[in-house]
Amino acid sequence: MTTYKLFVLPGDGIGPEIMAEAEKIAAWLTSAGIVGFEIEQGLVGGAAYDVHGTAISDADMARAEAADAVLLAAVGGPKWDGVPYEVRPEAGLLRLRKDLALFANLRPAICYPALADASSLKREIIEGLDLMIVRELTGGVYFGEPKQIIDLGNGQKRAIDTQVYDTYEIERIGRVAFELARKRRNKVASSEKRNVMKSGVLWNEVITALHARDYPDVQLEHHLADSLGMQLVRRPKQFDVIVTDNLFGDMLSDVAAMLTGSLGMLPSASLGERNAKTGARKALYEPVHGSAPDIAGKGLANPIAMIGSLGMALRYSFDLNDVADRIDRAISGVLDKGLRTADIAGAGKETISTAQMGDAILAEL
Amino acid sequence: MTTYKLFVLPGDGIGPEIMAEAEKIAAWLTSAGIVGFEIEQGLVGGAAYDVHGTAISDADMARAEAADAVLLAAVGGPKWDGVPYEVRPEAGLLRLRKDLALFANLRPAICYPALADASSLKREIIEGLDLMIVRELTGGVYFGEPKQIIDLGNGQKRAIDTQVYDTYEIERIGRVAFELARKRRNKVASSEKRNVMKSGVLWNEVITALHARDYPDVQLEHHLADSLGMQLVRRPKQFDVIVTDNLFGDMLSDVAAMLTGSLGMLPSASLGERNAKTGARKALYEPVHGSAPDIAGKGLANPIAMIGSLGMALRYSFDLNDVADRIDRAISGVLDKGLRTADIAGAGKETISTAQMGDAILAEL
Ligand SMILES: CC(C)[C@H](C(=O)O)[C@@H](O)C(=O)O
Ligand SMILES: CC(C)[C@H](C(=O)O)[C@@H](O)C(=O)O
Repeated sequence: MTTYKLFVLPGDGIGPEIMAEAEKIAAWLTSAGIVGFEIEQGLVGGAAYDVHGTAISDADMARAEAADAVLLAAVGGPKWDGVPYEVRPEAGLLRLRKDLALFANLRPAICYPALADASSLKREIIEGLDLMIVRELTGGVYFGEPKQIIDLGNGQKRAIDTQVYDTYEIERIGRVAFELARKRRNKVASSEKRNVMKSGVLWNEVITALHARDYPDVQLEHHLADSLGMQLVRRPKQFDVIVTDNLFGDMLSDVAAMLTGSLGMLPSASLGERNAKTGARKALYEPVHGSAPDIAGKGLANPIAMIGSLGMALRYSFDLNDVADRIDRAISGVLDKGLRTADIAGAGKETISTAQMGDAILAEL
Repeated sequence: MTTYKLFVLPGDGIGPEIMAEAEKIAAWLTSAGIVGFEIEQGLVGGAAYDVHGTAISDADMARAEAADAVLLAAVGGPKWDGVPYEVRPEAGLLRLRKDLALFANLRPAICYPALADASSLKREIIEGLDLMIVRELTGGVYFGEPKQIIDLGNGQKRAIDTQVYDTYEIERIGRVAFELARKRRNKVASSEKRNVMKSGVLWNEVITALHARDYPDVQLEHHLADSLGMQLVRRPKQFDVIVTDNLFGDMLSDVAAMLTGSLGMLPSASLGERNAKTGARKALYEPVHGSAPDIAGKGLANPIAMIGSLGMALRYSFDLNDVADRIDRAISGVLDKGLRTADIAGAGKETISTAQMGDAILAEL
């Protein structure tokens, strides 16, 4: 049995509760002799700020670098609304993404049949939805410089953010999308605002050239980002893989996630480049949902996206597709049995707690 | 009877067809002695490029400046995909917005009861929806400099776009939102990405201060833009007025429009500052939908958003609320009678043409 180093960052809000359930599953996988995990825990977000005065300490960054995979739950909350911009909870997450060079963010939006009625969309529009948003995660307006607020005097300030993309950044995220599409339904939709943004012009040009050169067998479409947002609402099932930049990816993946009615169910993976020699790569896995401070500490949170994130780690970091499939089946299994945390139960329906959901998935395994 | 100068720009695709119907209504309003219009027609978008080699000529810009209101249908289409960035169809629209200083874009998203079933959302989620997106239209990443593509050599290019916002720009769009909210349900949701963007930090700060100083009676909420996108899908009826920047406004207003299932129904207004002396202001009115090149010239397009845009001109430029209300009632009237263009008819239902829809609205008036 191979043993992997897992670095877990529970973060803020419901983070610690849902992470505890993922750790339960990881511990069981080890004790059952399926895959070994050495687990270390660190602090990120507001939790790190409260202890270290920064959103992630250098020591924890070093442990993240050394790990085979990082699991993160969620960061942020109103408690830290007033802290300086540089050390706000989100800064910890952004530093992890940037310093580990996790340029490829994979965000599946899947509609679980048992939950189709939880969607605000009509069943026929959403049932069977299975798309993957591939979001560029280390470039664009999130990190471009200058990024500052200038005092102009007279009570006037000027805020500046800069969207920057280089050819190689677009190309490598494009490759991830085309490769994934080949294992799925062989369709990629690339999205930008080339009618308004120069980065959109370059994005379109690079993806088009890459497609012609290396992936002519994959079906490629281009959609303006606003129009893609509309199409997601109108006919989401037309999409297979969507590739887009950091900011559009942030917006579009949240809309896509919400379509499914299963926001508490959706995991994500953030991947770095493969080491040419070892084939290994840095990776961080986290739920798509946030820290939900309003329900924190009450045992109400849904741990499925967090457990699914562990599943994605098995798939994308450790090549254990069969174990990952088992976890996915266990999740479907508990849903089919009608077990629901509050977020996915219909009004007036019976619900179970965070820990009960974790236990149920474990039992199913 | 006062007479106003209306400058109409049919543009591309279905533009000329739907504009013809709005002009029919305008001509009738004049002949019926309700309000006088002197109509001049110009070229914008691909249509202008084909004649002048530019997306709008200086002469037409001058006529737009001189008009009491501009009506625009739609620009763009695959025919002009290859033209240089500076003269692409959208450049005409962007020049109009910038040179006329139309900083406030009002985009209502209304779900017509007769059309609620055309939405991809469940009826109970969408029925009765009536929100207004107030989008900043002359700033942000649409116009900020530098905006360029640099050749780095070795097959590498770097694309740069710049998001810039000054305090005064945020303040004046904030005022528009708060004033509008007072005439509606007294609620404003402001949206940005303050957790990632400095412009979001300043946006939040300026709106918060403006609210405390001049609009404490209006209810104000702040939403991160990704989260607002989710809430639009989940519970759109919680919103009254949404105020946001140029790029987020582009995305969010398209998502909101699509929720209603009535994209072909939604008009928009783009307004400049009021002249302190005369009270007049520059204004452009256009449908939210695009130029739909795939159905152009076939008499299939829905002219209602275009006719509604004329209605908005009556309301916001000429203070003729009663006439605008009459137009809105006429539109509801034809819908209640079951008349439908193809875009809003259910599958297999009977449809009428663009011109028939215009005539039906005229008859209803
Ligand atoms: C927390 C925040 C910085 C983050 C982002 O904007 O990327 C989040 O919204 C996400 O999508 O992972
Ligand atoms: C045509 C395009 C430049 C425009 C925009 O991005 O503003 C359109 O999408 C809109 O929303 O009016």
